[in-house]
Amino acid sequence: MENVLRFGMVGGAVDSFIGNVHRKGATFDDQAQLVAGCFSRNFERTLATGKRWGVAQERLYRSFQEMAEKEAAREDGIDYAIICTPNHSHYAATKAFLEQGIHVVCDKPLTVTVEEAEELVQLAEAKGLLFGVSYAYSQCPAVKQAQLMVRNGDIGQIQVVVAEYPMGWLAAPVELEEGQPMPWRMDPEQSGLSNCVADIGSHVEHTVAYITGLQIEELCARLDYFGGPNRALDTNAHVLLKYGNGGVGNYWCSQVAIGYDNPLRVRIFGTKGTIEWCQEIPNYLLVRKLGEPPQLLARGHSYLYPDAVQMNRLSAGHSEGYFEMFANFYRKYNSALLKHKQGLELTAEDLDFPDGRAGLRGVKFINRCVESSQRGSIWVKFD
Amino acid sequence: MENVLRFGMVGGAVDSFIGNVHRKGATFDDQAQLVAGCFSRNFERTLATGKRWGVAQERLYRSFQEMAEKEAAREDGIDYAIICTPNHSHYAATKAFLEQGIHVVCDKPLTVTVEEAEELVQLAEAKGLLFGVSYAYSQCPAVKQAQLMVRNGDIGQIQVVVAEYPMGWLAAPVELEEGQPMPWRMDPEQSGLSNCVADIGSHVEHTVAYITGLQIEELCARLDYFGGPNRALDTNAHVLLKYGNGGVGNYWCSQVAIGYDNPLRVRIFGTKGTIEWCQEIPNYLLVRKLGEPPQLLARGHSYLYPDAVQMNRLSAGHSEGYFEMFANFYRKYNSALLKHKQGLELTAEDLDFPDGRAGLRGVKFINRCVESSQRGSIWVKFD
Amino acid sequence: MENVLRFGMVGGAVDSFIGNVHRKGATFDDQAQLVAGCFSRNFERTLATGKRWGVAQERLYRSFQEMAEKEAAREDGIDYAIICTPNHSHYAATKAFLEQGIHVVCDKPLTVTVEEAEELVQLAEAKGLLFGVSYAYSQCPAVKQAQLMVRNGDIGQIQVVVAEYPMGWLAAPVELEEGQPMPWRMDPEQSGLSNCVADIGSHVEHTVAYITGLQIEELCARLDYFGGPNRALDTNAHVLLKYGNGGVGNYWCSQVAIGYDNPLRVRIFGTKGTIEWCQEIPNYLLVRKLGEPPQLLARGHSYLYPDAVQMNRLSAGHSEGYFEMFANFYRKYNSALLKHKQGLELTAEDLDFPDGRAGLRGVKFINRCVESSQRGSIWVKFD
Amino acid sequence: MENVLRFGMVGGAVDSFIGNVHRKGATFDDQAQLVAGCFSRNFERTLATGKRWGVAQERLYRSFQEMAEKEAAREDGIDYAIICTPNHSHYAATKAFLEQGIHVVCDKPLTVTVEEAEELVQLAEAKGLLFGVSYAYSQCPAVKQAQLMVRNGDIGQIQVVVAEYPMGWLAAPVELEEGQPMPWRMDPEQSGLSNCVADIGSHVEHTVAYITGLQIEELCARLDYFGGPNRALDTNAHVLLKYGNGGVGNYWCSQVAIGYDNPLRVRIFGTKGTIEWCQEIPNYLLVRKLGEPPQLLARGHSYLYPDAVQMNRLSAGHSEGYFEMFANFYRKYNSALLKHKQGLELTAEDLDFPDGRAGLRGVKFINRCVESSQRGSIWVKFD
Repeated sequence: MENVLRFGMVGGAVDSFIGNVHRKGATFDDQAQLVAGCFSRNFERTLATGKRWGVAQERLYRSFQEMAEKEAAREDGIDYAIICTPNHSHYAATKAFLEQGIHVVCDKPLTVTVEEAEELVQLAEAKGLLFGVSYAYSQCPAVKQAQLMVRNGDIGQIQVVVAEYPMGWLAAPVELEEGQPMPWRMDPEQSGLSNCVADIGSHVEHTVAYITGLQIEELCARLDYFGGPNRALDTNAHVLLKYGNGGVGNYWCSQVAIGYDNPLRVRIFGTKGTIEWCQEIPNYLLVRKLGEPPQLLARGHSYLYPDAVQMNRLSAGHSEGYFEMFANFYRKYNSALLKHKQGLELTAEDLDFPDGRAGLRGVKFINRCVESSQRGSIWVKFD
Repeated sequence: MENVLRFGMVGGAVDSFIGNVHRKGATFDDQAQLVAGCFSRNFERTLATGKRWGVAQERLYRSFQEMAEKEAAREDGIDYAIICTPNHSHYAATKAFLEQGIHVVCDKPLTVTVEEAEELVQLAEAKGLLFGVSYAYSQCPAVKQAQLMVRNGDIGQIQVVVAEYPMGWLAAPVELEEGQPMPWRMDPEQSGLSNCVADIGSHVEHTVAYITGLQIEELCARLDYFGGPNRALDTNAHVLLKYGNGGVGNYWCSQVAIGYDNPLRVRIFGTKGTIEWCQEIPNYLLVRKLGEPPQLLARGHSYLYPDAVQMNRLSAGHSEGYFEMFANFYRKYNSALLKHKQGLELTAEDLDFPDGRAGLRGVKFINRCVESSQRGSIWVKFD
Repeated sequence: MENVLRFGMVGGAVDSFIGNVHRKGATFDDQAQLVAGCFSRNFERTLATGKRWGVAQERLYRSFQEMAEKEAAREDGIDYAIICTPNHSHYAATKAFLEQGIHVVCDKPLTVTVEEAEELVQLAEAKGLLFGVSYAYSQCPAVKQAQLMVRNGDIGQIQVVVAEYPMGWLAAPVELEEGQPMPWRMDPEQSGLSNCVADIGSHVEHTVAYITGLQIEELCARLDYFGGPNRALDTNAHVLLKYGNGGVGNYWCSQVAIGYDNPLRVRIFGTKGTIEWCQEIPNYLLVRKLGEPPQLLARGHSYLYPDAVQMNRLSAGHSEGYFEMFANFYRKYNSALLKHKQGLELTAEDLDFPDGRAGLRGVKFINRCVESSQRGSIWVKFD
Repeated sequence: MENVLRFGMVGGAVDSFIGNVHRKGATFDDQAQLVAGCFSRNFERTLATGKRWGVAQERLYRSFQEMAEKEAAREDGIDYAIICTPNHSHYAATKAFLEQGIHVVCDKPLTVTVEEAEELVQLAEAKGLLFGVSYAYSQCPAVKQAQLMVRNGDIGQIQVVVAEYPMGWLAAPVELEEGQPMPWRMDPEQSGLSNCVADIGSHVEHTVAYITGLQIEELCARLDYFGGPNRALDTNAHVLLKYGNGGVGNYWCSQVAIGYDNPLRVRIFGTKGTIEWCQEIPNYLLVRKLGEPPQLLARGHSYLYPDAVQMNRLSAGHSEGYFEMFANFYRKYNSALLKHKQGLELTAEDLDFPDGRAGLRGVKFINRCVESSQRGSIWVKFD
């Protein structure tokens, strides 16, 4: 197959949840093939994963450093690397590939510190590499419609944003149980300085930013450690925000909200209307305009903006879900990279996927929230 | 009819929204009759209202002072007065009746200043008068069920409260339009130092307090004046709170949330479960317990606590609405007053209606929010 | 009070569910007063009820015949009688008052046989009496809006109607339990030849007819007796219908649908759009127009038709419920009667409340369903 | 890759909606590869499709007959063929492969006539071939949970089934428009004797049968041709049913229900509880048990039956959608076929995917509905 990209993965062994999602997303539209990997720090698992997914044994590596060097040296080396390890190793792995001139998609949060994220962004830009950060929730037609409505002034000037991401899976101290799928989440060594804000608060920040384009000027955060004894990291956070345009925001994320799974929910209030989207029913967008009855826009209909219709994979009423969000992210990324490889100029629309700068902004958000909370929940400047 | 109380009204002329609701609520269960009134500062309107509602002309008054004095002097004088004027006159009117030894139900917010509210509470207590404050939203069976579930430990210890009251009716500067029903809302002379927090933020505060019993220790508020040019009062507010038990809260109220009518919504997150209630679908309570599927409890079923079943007026599936909330408030108040008149001791359950102390707490909440916001949205102590 | 009607009640003793609802509804807008009654076949209960509700003892009667005669003879006799006894006695009681020239509101189903209903309608018309039948579910602003949308052609020509009324309260043989509130429902002596179709299927028929004005031409019904041993009356029914305009209908009613309370739900499908209403969330109307996103219309907004706005009692977002439906029915009825007493001509709009003809149509519907089912669920003509 | 099946496709050219869904579903779990095809009657389109999806040119065929013969002759011939052409050619194509001893998955409805379907089922059974029919809607964890709840008696004996599939895409005569995606739907030459019942009524029938296992004894159907002038095929149908266990059913399908996309919705009413599922929110199951509040079961939680949990691809709250339903169908089918190829005995659970017998039952259902309607909507025997 011509015009097919080659990618490798760091992390994402065969039994990893997010690794499989990345792989499916990257290959969903037949634009890319998995050809190399360092799927685990345990080489046996890397070998087993490679065998399961049909990766040639010679392209299974013991370390990402080795992988970056050897793949860069091959004529048929990977076009890009996907980094989906725990947070703390994103920085070094991403850097290794960028330095070798290999494009990168990294999972979020991009890094632990702001300095690391800034360095990676500068490195990618200096080398002219396409740097994606996989905030997949924003990559669905309804969110695109929301973004276009804001851009086109359909809801006027934004005054208030209320967004939340309540989950309940850490309501009890499950990190102490054996066989828990993500024990590293509550370990500062691997998660960095935040658990809840880093894991899901960052999705709130990104989704709002992607839809609205608003700049955060200041924020005031309160982080709590509910749900278990002696927890070292946050499991609940409330954040008030002031935006550059004079508007205000209120973000809440929680992992102790019993009975909630993944309802990331964003509400944008403008001078002419209101937009509401929820990740658990991602095919719909609730729109309320001044003086009119609320409307429920559904994916796939021609009353949506053409760019939102175009993202469509299935006819209206057939649910697209989480895999499709990743597939949409990678369709954007792969398409841009294919065009880039042909030497063509990329437009703003080509580059409309979450990138290194979005990743950097996310890391800043996490750090500012932690800083504000530690200093008594005072207001801190964002930049 | 024996065993029927007599009440009079201050405010609530025939074309007033809330006046009619109070009248219907107070008389809904045939426990009380309207017999006197000073329905308006305009005596012609008082006369017309009295005629419409069958009040004898001799008991229609030009001022609440006159009404308080003359009714106190009558053998068949009113048992209690309902005060439903704009905010700024609550204090003087309430005081006038209390001083004459007449029981009072006052609309919320009780007063403009904390000092006024404290004085009224002390006055009522000193005189042994039943002092109700009509926070009616909390007076429905589903909210009672929520309160009982919290009291009985069904959701464990409360860690997080997220509550909101978004409305959209002030999204455009309607106070500048002629014939607007409530122009005084945006007038500091009549509303006091807050519009949005005073009008609806206070309902959020009360409903949470009624259900949870939590004490606010500190709060940090941000008030904004969106929706029109040169607005003198707030139309949007975000409040973070710390409770005495170590939990945290996040309240939001808005009158510029286009497309929202009255969905006061309260979510209580405990260590064992979550409770959620919304005023627009008041007959239901959403309950989520650790490890179980979410449940939708409906008014009228025997799986509710007996005290919640008992508040029932209609069989399950027949909606009870806003009038019934007022009727429930007044059923409690009237029943307590009838018992009190018989010289009987009132139990805590008899007195389980929003009272002067709830009113005082509400005034404090409004004042603390304004103070915090004016000082740069810093944290302020509640008491 | 001038301009206030006087009414009496047959049935509806103090502990009856529907009696209290009728009384509240009739008096809700201060247009009528309860002054006479034969509330029970048990005179002691009638006396107790009269005392509770302030009816003079001389106007409490041992039989409806006595009441009809004596009230007709009084100068201050009742303007109308409300009949809310079990089904089988509707006919005789209604007839007694009509014959005395007293207006009547009768509960539904109007009678047991079609002949009885026809006789009553003819009697009322011959005497020029206002004859209401209290199908209250159709009397709310959202249903009025639906009716006006159909009349104005907003959804084009109606092709399909799908309506249902599932309840669960007879899923177990509760009629065998002591203290059951409505044991007569399953007793053919009192309910007539049908339970489920008569009690709730008739509401489906009426609500559809009220909104659409469609004439039923033929129907095919299947009645079942689920939920208990040896039940003599139906508890579940499916009915297919052909309308005069070429459209088709599908009605379902059930009392063995576990977990359902009262969600009477009507969906009307036209060539230009779809309308949907549900009794349990009665303040909303879901509208879907060809090529547009679905809209949720809410009571109280100015985007509704003026006649629907006018029915409003509370501002948008404050629920109106079941009591208000009865109050709306009686506001129409009382207003028409007051105008009639002044000798004024009544317009079609004045008479837009469920009347004797609606009652007759309902009785026909019940009888046709039973006939079809008994003959093997064949198609039978409606008229 | 070992242990990977080889399949070919008949129909499903690159721009076909359902072809792509089948291909993705069959390959989703890396159990099968597309290696041959006759994607279109137009060989140019077959070539283009093969090129796009990486099928070797020598295995692109001009006719399914040629494909069946040549693939049967190859040592590395396909293990199974997927037939996803318009309805009328299912029979011949399926037969061609079965006769060559090649396993088949055919789209629904299986054939036009009952005789054809019976012949195919007998042929497959005689040859010992795995014969799947891709009713994918039933292949999701929530439907599996429903099936297991019924099997385990959780809702008691089933008395009533109410199921519907309303769509709106044929509300206007779109088949007359140029470029319409599925003009053949309204063409009896290609669709067979029914459009609406065949296309979506058959999904209602299958989903109910899959969950409940109920046998249809008799049915009474009314088909209509709404939505356009001189339509030759049905666009709306109501069907009443009697089941072998004494229960009754009511199915409705429509393509003129404006504003509806794909909400196939099934409600099962038993003596102990009620189950409800809707295809547009496929990750949830609403359960109502006698005397308990309704519960909303969500995919991915451990309170579900293990076999439903096991079907899980994503953690709770991350939507699985339409692609996953096909992937689930093919995971079952591929797993069974892989086991079969190893000479192992297949259990009932291995074979728990919609098969030829389900396809035959579906064809019978369509034919019986058409027959009943044509004979005046009388009751007809199912077998």
